[in-house]
Amino acid sequence: MSKTEKALTISDLGEFGLIDHLTKDFTITDKKLIKGIGDDAAVFETGDICTLVTTDLLVEGIHFNLIYTPLKHLGYKAVVVNLSDLYAMNATPKYITVSIAVSRKFSVPALEQLYEGIKIACDRFGVELAGGDTTSSLSGLFINITAIGEAKKEDIVFRSGAKKNDLVCVSGDLGGSYCGLQLLEREKEVFIGDPAIQPKLDGFEYIVERQLKPEPRRDIIQKLKEAGIKPTSMIDISDGLSSEMLHLCKNSGCGCMIFEDKIPVHPQTEAASVMFGIDPSIAAMNGGEDYELLFTVPLDKKDIIEKLNDISIIGYIHEDKNTKLFVPRNGAELELKAQGWNPMKG
Amino acid sequence: MSKTEKALTISDLGEFGLIDHLTKDFTITDKKLIKGIGDDAAVFETGDICTLVTTDLLVEGIHFNLIYTPLKHLGYKAVVVNLSDLYAMNATPKYITVSIAVSRKFSVPALEQLYEGIKIACDRFGVELAGGDTTSSLSGLFINITAIGEAKKEDIVFRSGAKKNDLVCVSGDLGGSYCGLQLLEREKEVFIGDPAIQPKLDGFEYIVERQLKPEPRRDIIQKLKEAGIKPTSMIDISDGLSSEMLHLCKNSGCGCMIFEDKIPVHPQTEAASVMFGIDPSIAAMNGGEDYELLFTVPLDKKDIIEKLNDISIIGYIHEDKNTKLFVPRNGAELELKAQGWNPMKG
Repeated sequence: MSKTEKALTISDLGEFGLIDHLTKDFTITDKKLIKGIGDDAAVFETGDICTLVTTDLLVEGIHFNLIYTPLKHLGYKAVVVNLSDLYAMNATPKYITVSIAVSRKFSVPALEQLYEGIKIACDRFGVELAGGDTTSSLSGLFINITAIGEAKKEDIVFRSGAKKNDLVCVSGDLGGSYCGLQLLEREKEVFIGDPAIQPKLDGFEYIVERQLKPEPRRDIIQKLKEAGIKPTSMIDISDGLSSEMLHLCKNSGCGCMIFEDKIPVHPQTEAASVMFGIDPSIAAMNGGEDYELLFTVPLDKKDIIEKLNDISIIGYIHEDKNTKLFVPRNGAELELKAQGWNPMKG
Repeated sequence: MSKTEKALTISDLGEFGLIDHLTKDFTITDKKLIKGIGDDAAVFETGDICTLVTTDLLVEGIHFNLIYTPLKHLGYKAVVVNLSDLYAMNATPKYITVSIAVSRKFSVPALEQLYEGIKIACDRFGVELAGGDTTSSLSGLFINITAIGEAKKEDIVFRSGAKKNDLVCVSGDLGGSYCGLQLLEREKEVFIGDPAIQPKLDGFEYIVERQLKPEPRRDIIQKLKEAGIKPTSMIDISDGLSSEMLHLCKNSGCGCMIFEDKIPVHPQTEAASVMFGIDPSIAAMNGGEDYELLFTVPLDKKDIIEKLNDISIIGYIHEDKNTKLFVPRNGAELELKAQGWNPMKG
């Protein structure tokens, strides 16, 4: 690097750029490590079945605000965002480890609530707490959960298998979590101004819950299995549809066409978007934290997919990797760009 | 809890008490999870071999001080403290995931140094970086590493297998890392007083390195294997000999006799202890962060163990679980008490 060149900053690179940059010298030599960095989870062969590992670090003030996040919900969410990554590999979650760093402001009863939420998630999704680490921090709460799952090698779905003409599908609806967050942030400001005022969340319960207590889509994985469909590629939507779609395209070496009018948006998301003066499609494309599944299936599965509830076909895979288009309702063709949430810009 | 009873604080419970308390309702129902919380690593069966998982969270200002900790050393240490846990189960480390949260004060070149240290550790111990998470923090650096290893089921050594009359052994020497830390802390104070003064570490390089760049004892595991010895119980010494010995006793349902004059202490540790007015045995018993192995072997292996370099027999296992004694040089019998470092007291 020349001396006159400005040193790279972390926010120049962004989260994914930073990971790529820091890990570029780590070459995989172990043939049993089928997938390292660059998918929802790492995969390694252990006998007949593969073991999958994913990890997620949640930081107070960056990923959550305890003014409006109940610790029980936070514990639940911290687990399920990891399980979502395992489901996005078509794997079964089995174990988690939980590391927490807490400042002196936290009481034991507060941490009990956190672990209550962790336990509800473990029980609901059949996962065992296998270990962890507990220490103190100088300020704030840090939660790092690592989830371990398993799958038969032939069942695993990577980000890299999308093929020309495959249908692009999403589960559930998008943008709700982002709108729920906007609502909570608004009520936080009101509360800071006058703590006597009760939050106004009536009629928006669904999107608030999408933010505070997202559900990983185990049901979609099961539904696809029962229908005899193995997606050709899959990812969970944590950073917004645009960002995740670009990951699938990059990893699969293909392009895509995504149609605005096909993107599923909940009525509460529509209503909140109108209230905040946001285009609902922008919330859906760039909002993030929906933890829905984005996946591709071969075109000949169209009839089967259309019969499945809670799955929408939103576009198709284009063979040219430079053709990544978003088609708004007016029929124009815009380049698909990621404007998902970047935790490195804070 | 009655209203007059004072609410439990985190420091009342300490790290181990807190983990026990928070996880008491998490019962293991999965028979493939051979060992959950309560050993150096979790163990689960995956086909013919078992997979082991351990995780460790390092917090700036609690576990390390960047005034005297080079980031490259920190990256190395963050990996090897986890590998040490896997070696303490007699397992082979295979993969790690690295999660970091960094504040704005860190530059990309600084993080490159951190990852350089991580890579050196990975290369040295044959471990692959399989994944991770990178995000920002409001202040300071947080590193959570999860290490995954494997072992044949019959090779795994738990904390729970120590039997009456077994010999208690340790690798290397103890107390050095603690004395190295005292030295670095002293020089930090001098540096804060006058940044022009160079640190005086001459003659103490060994103990400074013990603190900044500890080495996990893969060599001891290999040596024991070659000698045909499988320890009956084992743990790595991260919190001080006393604390770890009590873990072995508690998990194995036994007591012990530990002899002060048998505890291996390096000359530099002796010298630094004298300088700081600490009893070297106190540093060895309670200092922590030596990352040596503490293990028990059947009495009939005495001749073989005595021939192995860098292993000391420091006592034996007592059948009565209430008899946990430390025998100082004067021959008195003192109750063994843990006064290891408690990260929850900060």
